[in-house]
Amino acid sequence: MRMIKWQNGTVITPDQTKLPLQEVTLEIQTVEQMAEAIKNLRVRGAPLLGAAAAFAIAIAAYHSNAKTPLQLISELEYAGNTIKKQRPTAVNLFWGIDRVLKKAKTIQDNIEEIKNKVIEEAQKIADEDAQNNRAIGKNGSPLIEDGDTILTHCNAGELCAVEYGTALGVVRAAWEEGKKIKVIADETRPLLQGARLTTYELKRDGIPVTLITDNMAGYVMSKGLVNKVIVGADRIVQDAVFNKIGTYSVAVLAKEHNVPFYVAAPTSTFDLTRKASDIIIEERKAEEITHVGCQQIAPYGVNVMNPAFDATPLKYVSAIICEKKVFYNKDFKDFKKGKI
Amino acid sequence: MRMIKWQNGTVITPDQTKLPLQEVTLEIQTVEQMAEAIKNLRVRGAPLLGAAAAFAIAIAAYHSNAKTPLQLISELEYAGNTIKKQRPTAVNLFWGIDRVLKKAKTIQDNIEEIKNKVIEEAQKIADEDAQNNRAIGKNGSPLIEDGDTILTHCNAGELCAVEYGTALGVVRAAWEEGKKIKVIADETRPLLQGARLTTYELKRDGIPVTLITDNMAGYVMSKGLVNKVIVGADRIVQDAVFNKIGTYSVAVLAKEHNVPFYVAAPTSTFDLTRKASDIIIEERKAEEITHVGCQQIAPYGVNVMNPAFDATPLKYVSAIICEKKVFYNKDFKDFKKGKI
Repeated sequence: MRMIKWQNGTVITPDQTKLPLQEVTLEIQTVEQMAEAIKNLRVRGAPLLGAAAAFAIAIAAYHSNAKTPLQLISELEYAGNTIKKQRPTAVNLFWGIDRVLKKAKTIQDNIEEIKNKVIEEAQKIADEDAQNNRAIGKNGSPLIEDGDTILTHCNAGELCAVEYGTALGVVRAAWEEGKKIKVIADETRPLLQGARLTTYELKRDGIPVTLITDNMAGYVMSKGLVNKVIVGADRIVQDAVFNKIGTYSVAVLAKEHNVPFYVAAPTSTFDLTRKASDIIIEERKAEEITHVGCQQIAPYGVNVMNPAFDATPLKYVSAIICEKKVFYNKDFKDFKKGKI
Repeated sequence: MRMIKWQNGTVITPDQTKLPLQEVTLEIQTVEQMAEAIKNLRVRGAPLLGAAAAFAIAIAAYHSNAKTPLQLISELEYAGNTIKKQRPTAVNLFWGIDRVLKKAKTIQDNIEEIKNKVIEEAQKIADEDAQNNRAIGKNGSPLIEDGDTILTHCNAGELCAVEYGTALGVVRAAWEEGKKIKVIADETRPLLQGARLTTYELKRDGIPVTLITDNMAGYVMSKGLVNKVIVGADRIVQDAVFNKIGTYSVAVLAKEHNVPFYVAAPTSTFDLTRKASDIIIEERKAEEITHVGCQQIAPYGVNVMNPAFDATPLKYVSAIICEKKVFYNKDFKDFKKGKI
C-alpha cells in the first residue's frame, strides 16, 4: 500500500497519530501543514520523512506565484528550512530536501520547468523508496529462519516508509516466502508506535504479533522466546545507529542473550561523514512523558527527560540490511572510513 | 508516614491506583474488600502486602461471630486462602497470613484471646516493618555517595511499605544524612508505579527526581548519568530476585555499564527454600497493556503478554540490603544453601 501520494498539489497520507482506532487521511496543501504534521508525528518514520520532505518542496513549487526562477528557488529554500527545523535527528528529512533543491538548481531560466522537475524528483524519491524497501526485504529475508520469533522496537513498517517497510519489510519478505514467523512488538513509549502502528499493520496482514511493554524485552529474551531482533534507523553514522529511544537498551539485551541484532534501513539513512558525537538528539516536550494521550499519569510539574532517539554503537549490531546488500559486523570498518 | 492503620476493625490505607492525581483513603472492613484492593493494586508493594494480609485476618477475627475457637480458626484460614489467591508471586502475602494464623493456633480455648492475639500480631507485623525499613535505610546508606544519581524501577518507597520504604528507604536515609543525591525513576509500565508513586512521594519530600520511560534506562546509563541502581523485591529465592517486570532488563543494563545494582528488601521477602524455577510469575489481564487507564492504545483483540514480575539472577546483583545487614555478591553462596 502506498503511504504517501501526490495529487495535483495535494499530499495524501494517513494521520499516524490517530491509528489504530481511527483511519484519518491528511490532505496537505501547504508547507506549514506539512511542518505541523512532521513535528507532531502525523507523518513519521525515516524513509517516509524523506519523501514527505521532498513533497513539501513540491507543494511550495506547485502553489508558488514566483515571477522569476531566482524568486522560486528562494521560496523553495525557505520551505526547506521550515521543514528541516521540525526534527533534527532523522537524516532523511535533510536528504530529501537537499536532493530536490539540488535538482531545482540545475535549471536556471524556466519557472515551469523548475516546478515540474521538483515535483518529478519528489515522486522519484517516493518511487525509489518503495523499490528500496522491497530490495531490503529481499536482502534481509535470508537472515530469517522458518519458525523464528522476531522482536522489533518502534515501527519500521509500511507506515514508516512509502511502501512495505524496512525492518518489517524484512519480516514481510520472509513471511511471503512462506516462513512461519512471529513478531514481538515493543510498545515503544512515549508515543507508542509499536503498540499503535506495528501491531496494526501486522495484524491487518495476518502476520502473528504479540505486544509487550518495553520493559519486558529482557524477560522474553531470558525465556528464550526471541530468535532475532530487527529495527529500523533514523540515521546511521560511522560508529553508531540512531533510532527510536529504547533501541540501545534492546541491543544491549540482545547481546547479553546472544540474539542477533539487525538494522534495516535504506542508504538514504546513511550519514557516514559524521560520528555519533556530532549528532543532536531531539528532545521532545515533557507532556509526552507525563501524559498518555490526554490522560495525565504523573504529578504536576515533575521533571522529565524525553530524548526521541538513542545511539547504538556498531559493536552491538550484527548486520545492517540496506537496498544494496547486507553489511555484516566485520564490514563496518568501511563505515568508519566514511564510505560503503 | 504510616501507610496502613488499624482502627477498631477497619483498615485505613490510601488507594494507590488513584495517586498522584487524587488522594483517596480506603476504609476496608471485610476480607472481600481487602482481596479486591490487593487484586487491583489499590494496596501494593511487597512489605505493605505482608501487613495488609495480616490485617485481613485481623478483620476476619474482629468481625467474626464464631461460637467456638475451632470455628474461628476455620474462618481465619478461609480468609487467608481468599487473600492468598489474589497474587501468587509476592511472598510477603503468604508470610503475613501464615505468621498470624500460626499465632492464632497457639491458643486453643478462648475466642476473645484468639481475636486479640491476631489483631496484636498483625499490628506487630506492621510495627516491625516500619522498624525494618529504617534499618534497611541505615544499612544501605553507606553504599550511597554524596552526588550520586540513583535509578530506581517501580515503587519501593513509603507507598510499598508500612513506613519509609525499602529501596527509597535507602535513598531517604542517605538524603537525611545530608548527601546531595538525585533519583531517576523508570515509569514502570504497565501500571506506572514509577510515574505515579515514586515521583509523587519523592517530590513531596523534596528529593530531586526525574521521570523517564522504561526504555530510556540504557540511554541514561550510556550518558554516564546513573551511579547506582536500587530496587525492591517481591521475593528473593536461592538464585534470583523476583521484582516488578523490567527489573531484569535494568540489571542487565547496569552490568553492561558497570553500575552497581542493589536490591533492598526485608528478610520477610526471602524465600530461600525455593529456586527461581519453582516460582509462578503472575500473568495479569491484557487490558493493562492495551489500555492506559481508560484510554485504548492498541488495536482491538491484539495478542499480549503481561507478566507482572521477572527474575533477576543473583549474578547481576551487587548486594542485597536487608534489615539485618548487607549481603554482598560474594555472600550469596549462603543463599544457595538455603540459609542466611
